[in-house]
Amino acid sequence: MTPSPGSPGAVEAFATPPAPTPYLRVDVPRLVANVGRVAARAAAAGVALRPHAKTHKCAEVARLQVAAGAVGLTVATIGEAEAFADAGVDDLFVAYPLWLTDAAAERVRRLAGRVRLAIGGDSVEAVTRAARLLHGSGVELVVEVDSGHHRSGTEPGQAGTVARAAVDGGMPVRGVFTFPGHSYAPDALGSAAEDEAVALATAGRSLRAAGVEPVVVSGGSTPSLAGSLAGPAGPAHDAVTELRPGVYVFGDAQQWELGTTGPDDIALTCVTTVVSHAGGRLVLDAGSKSLGADRAGYATGWGRLPAYPDARVVLLSEHHAVVDLAGAALPPLGSRLEVVPNHVCNAVNLAEVLWADPADAAGVPEPWPVVARGRNG
Amino acid sequence: MTPSPGSPGAVEAFATPPAPTPYLRVDVPRLVANVGRVAARAAAAGVALRPHAKTHKCAEVARLQVAAGAVGLTVATIGEAEAFADAGVDDLFVAYPLWLTDAAAERVRRLAGRVRLAIGGDSVEAVTRAARLLHGSGVELVVEVDSGHHRSGTEPGQAGTVARAAVDGGMPVRGVFTFPGHSYAPDALGSAAEDEAVALATAGRSLRAAGVEPVVVSGGSTPSLAGSLAGPAGPAHDAVTELRPGVYVFGDAQQWELGTTGPDDIALTCVTTVVSHAGGRLVLDAGSKSLGADRAGYATGWGRLPAYPDARVVLLSEHHAVVDLAGAALPPLGSRLEVVPNHVCNAVNLAEVLWADPADAAGVPEPWPVVARGRNG
Repeated sequence: MTPSPGSPGAVEAFATPPAPTPYLRVDVPRLVANVGRVAARAAAAGVALRPHAKTHKCAEVARLQVAAGAVGLTVATIGEAEAFADAGVDDLFVAYPLWLTDAAAERVRRLAGRVRLAIGGDSVEAVTRAARLLHGSGVELVVEVDSGHHRSGTEPGQAGTVARAAVDGGMPVRGVFTFPGHSYAPDALGSAAEDEAVALATAGRSLRAAGVEPVVVSGGSTPSLAGSLAGPAGPAHDAVTELRPGVYVFGDAQQWELGTTGPDDIALTCVTTVVSHAGGRLVLDAGSKSLGADRAGYATGWGRLPAYPDARVVLLSEHHAVVDLAGAALPPLGSRLEVVPNHVCNAVNLAEVLWADPADAAGVPEPWPVVARGRNG
Repeated sequence: MTPSPGSPGAVEAFATPPAPTPYLRVDVPRLVANVGRVAARAAAAGVALRPHAKTHKCAEVARLQVAAGAVGLTVATIGEAEAFADAGVDDLFVAYPLWLTDAAAERVRRLAGRVRLAIGGDSVEAVTRAARLLHGSGVELVVEVDSGHHRSGTEPGQAGTVARAAVDGGMPVRGVFTFPGHSYAPDALGSAAEDEAVALATAGRSLRAAGVEPVVVSGGSTPSLAGSLAGPAGPAHDAVTELRPGVYVFGDAQQWELGTTGPDDIALTCVTTVVSHAGGRLVLDAGSKSLGADRAGYATGWGRLPAYPDARVVLLSEHHAVVDLAGAALPPLGSRLEVVPNHVCNAVNLAEVLWADPADAAGVPEPWPVVARGRNG
């Protein structure tokens, strides 16, 4: 489990590195396989796929998803929606309870003139305001409900009240959505998927009782997707018409540790250089400014190394990762090693480009601009 | 301690917001005061100040520091050095144990043709290589030693061996440096400053024993600076000729919780909007993609709110911060609230610009580009 330096995957990502380390490398064959596998499972289950683009923020990945049958993309912000509209995606859902200023409403109106657009909302006050500011724009509302993550989202039984306020204000309602973020915990996958199904079913009944038919019932984090698409008739299938996973395109150390992906399917790594052996430690030139500082309560470190599955990143600062190799011999100074970030969405958001390997049949790496990087508002 | 919304500082950062929330706001009078106060203390102590620019990554802040008497700037990467050379800073120290590829050495050589330049090194192998690749360039070495943080840096007693290797390879040696990162812990300030002083004194003796005179003895994180500059004759003064604090320009929630700064001196905040009251919670539109995901072991949450000192950010995802207001009334949906990031260096590295308030006598906010953002290699 601890290959010596020089073994495949241990050191050389590219024969000639395309950029100074640390940089992010995308394994294109794995990415394509991940995109295709989830698209096929969704199709087999009869569920629409609207992947969350916050993970990759890349036009190239968006085009792969759409080509594989995605009905459109999910984004988190108006800025991300603008970036993907510019990239040619024509059906976007801002899965966020927006509070629209006048300036934000004007941006949403302009977008709605270019693409099919829906936004989230979780309160009568916010959707009444949105209905007024977006009147006649064609922008649809999807009501957010809380399925147990306890972040945003109204109680499922109140979804109809929120939907009714939108309709009364002249805003069309597409349906309901939830994010079962509490699925990001060991052994929570099954129960979170069940919570999600119950919440969405309750929300759907609430809309119908308010006289609003939910056309779309949208759920699915990457972990709950693993649960809901595990078999031909997983628990959440009956409840949802649409799934919005994000992380599945690349995977990350969180998913590896949750067991929803394995190291052989992970399609994004940070390529680093061994810069120090001080005190017998392995010190890499990647840190929180390239990997992100994410560390969930269940995480065993600040990232994982495919070439050293037993190793852990035990200390992370802005430009240093100290690795405990679990007894393996230190790779030489100057070696290049790949690290899987804990949370790939935040690692991607630190980079200007992802280096696609290979980008073409000739095997030449190509920079994929992270076009929606930093588009937080 | 829980001002009502609408009280000064609670809601309106700018009368007319310069950008969609979340955005980073710099309180220029506080920034200027922080820069001046530390410069004055260093001058009074007879210690050179070479602030670490990784915190701000901004030409405008660099110019304030140089104008206040900084002898030059510290950076972490070659890319940061290039950015600050472009910004007109003419004396730079890359405080990092670089492993030079041929391409990296060529960049360092080009830089050395434009500015006075030093780089770090902590092993005979790396500095021998650097001496060979940089021969005749004038680039100086500063030997990194470990003072207890156990990241990079040779043992202080071995510093002379590393320095000797550089000199024998034809590379001039400026001195020694350390980063007492273990000062980032409650009650560790005094002991870390003491460790730092001992390590640097040992390293200096080691250089002299190897026949190399250390002209510069460089130390100082922002917490250990608080210790070493606490009085006119703090414990580290005798050991160092130069200090390299970074965070002091802005402060952050880590420093607030460590007690090295107070909320009234914090000069950078993330301006956010209240987007949801779901479940009676306060949900803001800032998350790990604007604040950073940093949370040290001693931190009480994912950020602090100056207007609500008793509040804590209890849940952070990419675009949501859920705040426990400790019993205060919820500010209305659409209110703007300022959040102090836990670790300002990583928050700044997420942004394209900082909004300086006020940038001029007319009080007009001005965007300061984060010119070294993402320059990790």
